[in-house]
Order: sequence, then structure tokens, then C-alpha cells
Amino acid sequence: MRTQVGIIGAGPAGLLLSHLLHLRGIESVVLERRSREYVERRVRAGVLEQGTVDTLVEAGVGERLKREGLPHHGIEFRYGGAGHRIAFERLVPGRCITVYGQQEVVKDLIAARLAAGGDVRFEVDDVALHDIGTDRPSLTFGGERLDCDVIAGCDGFHGVSRDSIPGGVLTEYRRDYPFAWLGILARVKPSSEELIYARTERGFALHSMRSAEISRFYLQVAPDEGVAAWPDERIWAELRARLETVPGFALATGEIIERSVTPMRSFVAEPMQHGRLFLAGDAAHIVPPTGAKGLNLAVADVRVLTEALARFFAGGSAEALDGYSRACLPRVWRAQHFSWWMTTLLHTFDSDDAYARRLQTSHLDYVTSSNAAGTTLAENYVGLPYEESL
Amino acid sequence: MRTQVGIIGAGPAGLLLSHLLHLRGIESVVLERRSREYVERRVRAGVLEQGTVDTLVEAGVGERLKREGLPHHGIEFRYGGAGHRIAFERLVPGRCITVYGQQEVVKDLIAARLAAGGDVRFEVDDVALHDIGTDRPSLTFGGERLDCDVIAGCDGFHGVSRDSIPGGVLTEYRRDYPFAWLGILARVKPSSEELIYARTERGFALHSMRSAEISRFYLQVAPDEGVAAWPDERIWAELRARLETVPGFALATGEIIERSVTPMRSFVAEPMQHGRLFLAGDAAHIVPPTGAKGLNLAVADVRVLTEALARFFAGGSAEALDGYSRACLPRVWRAQHFSWWMTTLLHTFDSDDAYARRLQTSHLDYVTSSNAAGTTLAENYVGLPYEESL
Repeated sequence: MRTQVGIIGAGPAGLLLSHLLHLRGIESVVLERRSREYVERRVRAGVLEQGTVDTLVEAGVGERLKREGLPHHGIEFRYGGAGHRIAFERLVPGRCITVYGQQEVVKDLIAARLAAGGDVRFEVDDVALHDIGTDRPSLTFGGERLDCDVIAGCDGFHGVSRDSIPGGVLTEYRRDYPFAWLGILARVKPSSEELIYARTERGFALHSMRSAEISRFYLQVAPDEGVAAWPDERIWAELRARLETVPGFALATGEIIERSVTPMRSFVAEPMQHGRLFLAGDAAHIVPPTGAKGLNLAVADVRVLTEALARFFAGGSAEALDGYSRACLPRVWRAQHFSWWMTTLLHTFDSDDAYARRLQTSHLDYVTSSNAAGTTLAENYVGLPYEESL
Repeated sequence: MRTQVGIIGAGPAGLLLSHLLHLRGIESVVLERRSREYVERRVRAGVLEQGTVDTLVEAGVGERLKREGLPHHGIEFRYGGAGHRIAFERLVPGRCITVYGQQEVVKDLIAARLAAGGDVRFEVDDVALHDIGTDRPSLTFGGERLDCDVIAGCDGFHGVSRDSIPGGVLTEYRRDYPFAWLGILARVKPSSEELIYARTERGFALHSMRSAEISRFYLQVAPDEGVAAWPDERIWAELRARLETVPGFALATGEIIERSVTPMRSFVAEPMQHGRLFLAGDAAHIVPPTGAKGLNLAVADVRVLTEALARFFAGGSAEALDGYSRACLPRVWRAQHFSWWMTTLLHTFDSDDAYARRLQTSHLDYVTSSNAAGTTLAENYVGLPYEESL
């Protein structure tokens, strides 16, 4: 079996790449370890940058997103007993974010690929990469073999792609945070129309949503706490303690339908390519979810990779591919810095002394009062313009 | 002997306060431990915010400053083999900084006080504060006694004023940095028209100036290194290594006429007042010199204190004084955060891993490319508007 681009992973990165390549007349096969049902239900990110929405709409997979996605024109920073709105319409006119679950993006992309006769294989076992250092790389899986011109590793942080690159090629940069996020999905109307980022002495909390009926919450928790430590009543009590800190705000409660603990870490592997293997999204870099950049960064990578592959297949020269990593990394590091910045701005660190806490408050006061500082937050949050010169 | 306001310290804070009070018809006596010659030669800060210049000019002590001060409309961030200009005229139109040595401000203020018959006493021994918790505080010094309505502690970080406040009243916030600054004054034409903030793998360096003939330099050094470890040839070699990092830039050298090591630390005491004692400037707070905020913050304190004292002496009610600390502290903490931010953005920290270094580079790339991020730097550097509601 043979294709032009072998894609490992049917998350947003792999599926979008397959779809965009199809629009350019380039064939691909997507191999996914999990079932279709699993990836379509996997709860992950839910905040789409303006550019991500534009990319999906332009690619013809934004119909339901436009209908069901919730455009947000601001977020709230809540601390010190008051709420402070970061008003996108004033700070970054014409740009906003859209709340739409990652699994919904995945559903839309799978439907589009299958409708176009795309080859997306689920529950594929034992994917392995071969000969990535040559111009005839291949993939094997479940006894089959797929010859490719190029392989795209879109299989996330724990995938096989990155680990297939020979030792010594990659430089890896890491940061682990001394806390985790407990993510909660609840069947209850959101108590706020916009996202609330709450900084309290008890730790950070985020009030988000997925729809008019489904609320999404996050709590900063100790890194070693499992979900078993968080029964319903403890979750609601803690959310109330961290969110009901301004007059008149009452948190509505409901059935908790999902809860999971996510480690908070940062990671970058450089370069994002080796031979004929190209990494995109979480396979190459991880950010803590505070800035909502993970999914959006994967989309940015895929845009660049699509362009590089289109040039490669049009001209036949491998040089078109050489600039991929270099073109992606400035945005990757911008997102790394922004995510670190949002995380340190809003979380409680056990290592912080009284001076550090006051500095954090002063920083929050500045971000919520200076037009320039508010704009640095807003422009990163809605997404900086793409700069994709290869 | 009696006066309305007893002022401890003839640095910029104490002298400016005495002068501004005089303009409001309020009497003061300034007590200074050092000689006039010493304070007029003491090399310290040299970057005046727009508001500091405006304050001095409006107070009638800006003649020489206007004539000899060097207005700067931008600074350079130098790193990664390139210079990046932060252009004030574009980012904060109409606002700039003025390079004018602190000792020149001190000379101008002493001259103005003495010309107006002001009482400024130098080489005063054993200043002590008494009865600051009552409405009849007093100062004793060298066998004399000065009865006051109010005492202003403008005697710096190591002065007696803050220590005269009873234990338990103040909350103190501190941060010590793991490096110091070696400050160098040299008789040589500046090699650049604007200040250069250089971030290198060898540590931070700053190229500043005092006049067309005098250059001022700073080098990040180990905190325990004395000036003895820095003979002329080592200083020039290190400055070259940290500043000659862009094509075409050559550092001019000359006679070194002063060198000293300054610890880098942050400090805030809250509240900035107790009873009839009011702290201003370094007596209440310290910032690392990176953001050039120390002198400017002292001027801001003195503006607020002058207003409070004018109301107090006009109305006779002590309530006018109550809001002093509260009115000063937001600006104090803004300066604390900005100074910490500039310091961490530009210095090398031994504790930094490769991830932290890349984050710093990404942050620098952002500040030098985003209009909003550049404006956060520029608006703090030239000085945010005063908000002095008592």
C-alpha cells in the first residue's frame, strides 16, 4: 500500500492536515490507535482562536462551528474581591475567540474526510516508523505496510513519532509545574456568559463552558491528587470558594459527567522534523492549558506543513520541506511564553513568599488597567496573526 | 527650635519635599548626616521620567536640567546578535526620559533651598526621632532639639527613620537577587546616542551616559565580588564582550573615574507612615536599578506627601494625612513589578535551565516586535501618569 503522506494520529492535527492536503490534491492515510467513538468523545480544549476558526471555515469544515460555536468577546479576571473584564472588542477590534469543544472539531473533520472518501483507519495496532532518514519512509501497523513520501507525526506527546527520531537529533526543553488541573464537565447552564479566570489564595479556578447546557470547570490541585480525592461535594464546595468571591455571583451546580486530572507542563522538541518525518501539535510541543493554546498551535503547525508539502509535491524538491520547523518555532515559543505567563499570573505557588504574591497582584492590577498590558493578553489569547514564510 | 516639617535626609526626596513645601508656604528643616560636598558628588541614578522632569520644571528648579539634560526618545535592547530599538516617540508619543545625574538634581535643589533662605543642615550627627505616635514629634541631633508637627523620613534604605517605627507596625516585603551591579563612570564620549540594555550569555550590561563626555556602564557581577576584582582592563574586556555583539559597534574606552558594586534587591515597607512620621523614597522601598525607577518613585512619593501636608496645614486636621501611604502604594508596587520584570527579562540567572533561557528569548522577541508589549515597556519606562487621589 502506498500514499503520499502517512499521518499518525486522528486528533485535530492529523485530521486537519489530511483534509487540507486533500483540498490541495495530495493523498494521505490517517492511522489512529483509538476507536472513532473514543476520539469523538475525548474531552480536551474548547477555546478556538480567531485564526483557527478562520482556517476551519475556509477549509469548508466550519458549518456546525459557525452554528453552534459560542463567540466570546471578552474574559473575566477575578481576584481581590472583584471581576475585571478583558474586552477583546476594545483591545483587539474585530477578533474574538469561539468556544467549541475539540471533540466537535474532530467529529466535523472525520465526517468531512469520510464524505470525501478519505482513508482514516481507527483501532490500528503497533504503528511503527521506518526509514525516515531516506526519501522512501514507510509505516507498518497490524501486519500491513504503508509506503509514503512523507510521514506526519500528529500522535501527541506520548505518541511513537517523536521517539522514532534517532537519539541526539532533538533538543528537548521542559518545565513541570508543581500543580495539576482537575477538569470537570457538568450538566448545568453556565453561571457566567464569559470565561472567568479566578485567582484566589486557595488556588486558581476557571469557569468555562461547552454549550448553553454544559459547564466546564478547572481547579488547580496538588499534582499527586487523583480524581478519587474529588467527590462531587468537594468539587462544588471548592469551586464555590474560589468563584463566589464577588458580590452577587452564585454558582449553579448540576450533574458532574466527567472529571480528570491533567498535569501542567511545558515541552518543546527542536527541530520539529527529521528526514521525511514532520511533527505537528502535541507530538512536538506541550503547553499548560491556561492560555488555551494547545489545539490552536497544532492548527498553526498544520497550516505551515500543508504549505510546505504542497510546494514539495508541486516541485518535487525536498528543499521546500527544510524550512518547516524554522517557520513554526517562533509561534511555538510565543505560545510557550504566553502559557507560562498566564499560568504564573493566576496560580498559587507554594514557593511564593509574601513579596511574590504582592508582585502577582500588582501584575494583575496592571493587566486589568493598562490598555497596552490588556492588549498583550488579548492579542495572544485571540491569537497573533500567522507568519508562515517558509 | 521648632519647624512645621522636620525632614531627615538631603537626598532628592528630602530636598524636593523641602522645596515644594516652601512653595506652599510651609516651613521645614532638612537634616543630613553627610557633607554638602558628599551628597553633591554621590553618583546614583541618572534617568528621569517625564513626570519627574515636569515636576522639577514646574517647581522652578529645572533651568539647568532643561539646558544640560539629554532627552532620550528611545532605548536599545541588544541580544541575539542584533539591536532592537524601543521607540518612545512611536509607542508613547509626546513622552520621553531625560538623562541627568541624580547628583545634579541634588545640586540644583540645594542651590534653590539656600537661595530661598531654606534651612538645610549638613554633617548632622546622631539624628533621633521622638514621640512620632503623638501630635508633637521631635528630632534631636548633635545636642539640639527640633520640635515639629510632622517628620518626613527621606533618609534612604539604611536611615534611622524606618527603624524608629515600633515593631509590629510595618509589614516588610523583600526580594534579593543572586547578582549585583558593578557601576562604572568613565571619562569617554558615549559609544551610542541612546542607552543599550544588553542581554548576553555572560550576563547583563548597560551602556548609559551622563553627558557628552562621561559614559556610565553597569555590569551584572557575582554578588560577593568587590571592586578589587575589577581592574580597568577586566572591566573594558567584559564590557566589550557584552556590548560588541552587533556588527559595526565598537566601544570607546577612557579613564575610569568611579566604580562601585550595588546589591540588587527589592523592598517595600507598608504602611509608609506611622503617627506623624511619613516615609518617602528609599526609606520606604527599594527597587533594583534596572528600570531606573528609584529616584522617580521618590519624586512621586514627595508629590503626594506635599499635597497631604498642604491640606493638613491648611485645615489643621490630621485626617488629610491618613491617605498618604494608600495613595502611594499602587505606584510603588507598579514600579516593583516593572523593575522585577526588566531585571528578569535581561539578566542571566544561574538557576535558569535551557527552557527558561528560551522563554527569556521569546519574551524579548515579543517585547521588541509587538506594539502592545513594546508599549508596556515604554509607558513604564517614561513613567505612568500620576494618580494622586488622597
